[in-house]
Amino acid sequence: MPVKLLITNDDGIYAEGIQLLSKVLFESGRYRLKIVAPDHERSAVGHAITMHRPLRVEQARFLHNPELTGWSVNGTPSDCVKLAVEALLDERPDLIISGINRGSNLGTDVLYSGTVSAAVEGIILGLPAVAVSLTEGDESQDFIYAAEFICDLIPQLIAEGLPEGTMLNINVPPGSSAIKGARATRLGTRRYRNSFDRRIDPRGMIYYWLAGELIEGEEEENSDVQAIRDGYISITPVHFNLTNEAIIPDLQKMLSRIKKG
Amino acid sequence: MPVKLLITNDDGIYAEGIQLLSKVLFESGRYRLKIVAPDHERSAVGHAITMHRPLRVEQARFLHNPELTGWSVNGTPSDCVKLAVEALLDERPDLIISGINRGSNLGTDVLYSGTVSAAVEGIILGLPAVAVSLTEGDESQDFIYAAEFICDLIPQLIAEGLPEGTMLNINVPPGSSAIKGARATRLGTRRYRNSFDRRIDPRGMIYYWLAGELIEGEEEENSDVQAIRDGYISITPVHFNLTNEAIIPDLQKMLSRIKKG
Repeated sequence: MPVKLLITNDDGIYAEGIQLLSKVLFESGRYRLKIVAPDHERSAVGHAITMHRPLRVEQARFLHNPELTGWSVNGTPSDCVKLAVEALLDERPDLIISGINRGSNLGTDVLYSGTVSAAVEGIILGLPAVAVSLTEGDESQDFIYAAEFICDLIPQLIAEGLPEGTMLNINVPPGSSAIKGARATRLGTRRYRNSFDRRIDPRGMIYYWLAGELIEGEEEENSDVQAIRDGYISITPVHFNLTNEAIIPDLQKMLSRIKKG
Repeated sequence: MPVKLLITNDDGIYAEGIQLLSKVLFESGRYRLKIVAPDHERSAVGHAITMHRPLRVEQARFLHNPELTGWSVNGTPSDCVKLAVEALLDERPDLIISGINRGSNLGTDVLYSGTVSAAVEGIILGLPAVAVSLTEGDESQDFIYAAEFICDLIPQLIAEGLPEGTMLNINVPPGSSAIKGARATRLGTRRYRNSFDRRIDPRGMIYYWLAGELIEGEEEENSDVQAIRDGYISITPVHFNLTNEAIIPDLQKMLSRIKKG
């Protein structure tokens, strides 16, 4: 039985990253692919889902490969994964792959990432999932290099499994021939300065553009940001055990001191 | 110096929850309030931010209290907090309060929550933050009860502080007089069944509504879901240490076994 993959992204179903990833995986002959992705770019949507309007699904065709099956959805990456698994696919996939995103998803930026949130939706549904991003540029050869890396990684992931509730967030630097290898990393920090650009429109009204310059700082040992700087692929295991267990006892003590409302 | 609060939400600046919260906090005389919230409802947007269009800000007036200062923003809850702290406010607030949301934000559902993501944006900016939700109903008296609870909690939070990178996710059940107290909890699990409703429109085209019925299951000890069922306010400390550190060594071993791409 070939491995069943669900492919999605946040750049939209016709973006080069998802097209080249699908092509490489399909042509390897090792996988059965279903592609369910947004009908247009949905970057920075975080874990948004669509509740207040209906979702529409269209069959998508791929000129480079008419054997591939795809659907485009007028929703977010999380919508795509939810809808694929709960309504569109006949069988649950063995693995979800979100990407290849154009642009990095490193450190704390993963909270805003549509690419990562599609993979998170996978783990909420109990399915193993991987998010893949190309940190810089959009050269076809760099997307293909990243796709080939994923193509070789999948059998290992399927064989060894991922702990429940954990996804892999993978970032690939450009310049394939110079890449030194892959590192298992932790999420670094990403801080920005001067985040808004205030402007006046032709009618004299104020508006704001989200801008913000990345502050390059000291990096924690073995962070994803540092791995990319050093020319490595970064692979970070990301989970969603969001409760800060350590402070529950102190919090309980504090609560006993407030007067009941 | 009165405590400086930034108030936001995801139901929109004119929703009853944020209006009554602001009224109660203002009338206590203990706080200086700035209100920056979306111009309309933005539920389930998760941690979405607006990058591809400019943000507009309008002064908002509150008929019940002309001394309050507010701005409405044509963006998400995360946009509101970012824009408030980086562009609109003269001084950084001492605490961010997001809410009072109409409807619960419990367990794994927090990943989709605009209310929680506004508080998360606060902790990304290095500011302590609290999200508050009324789990059921929309009676004014229940919002007021929740607001009074928050009003009494704030001085404790300011005095004792919160660990960096941790926010509090607070859910308040309805029926104020029957509430038994507050518990320091952990996030429970929320699972849904049959998530999409497939329909045919008047033109014969298929569309899907996100539906899904909550599966009531066994709850982990001391979960937020359980606390609400038992008639308590739940207060969960939520952090974003998303790296699954424990599996990094095994992952590194696995990487050494894949052929370099």
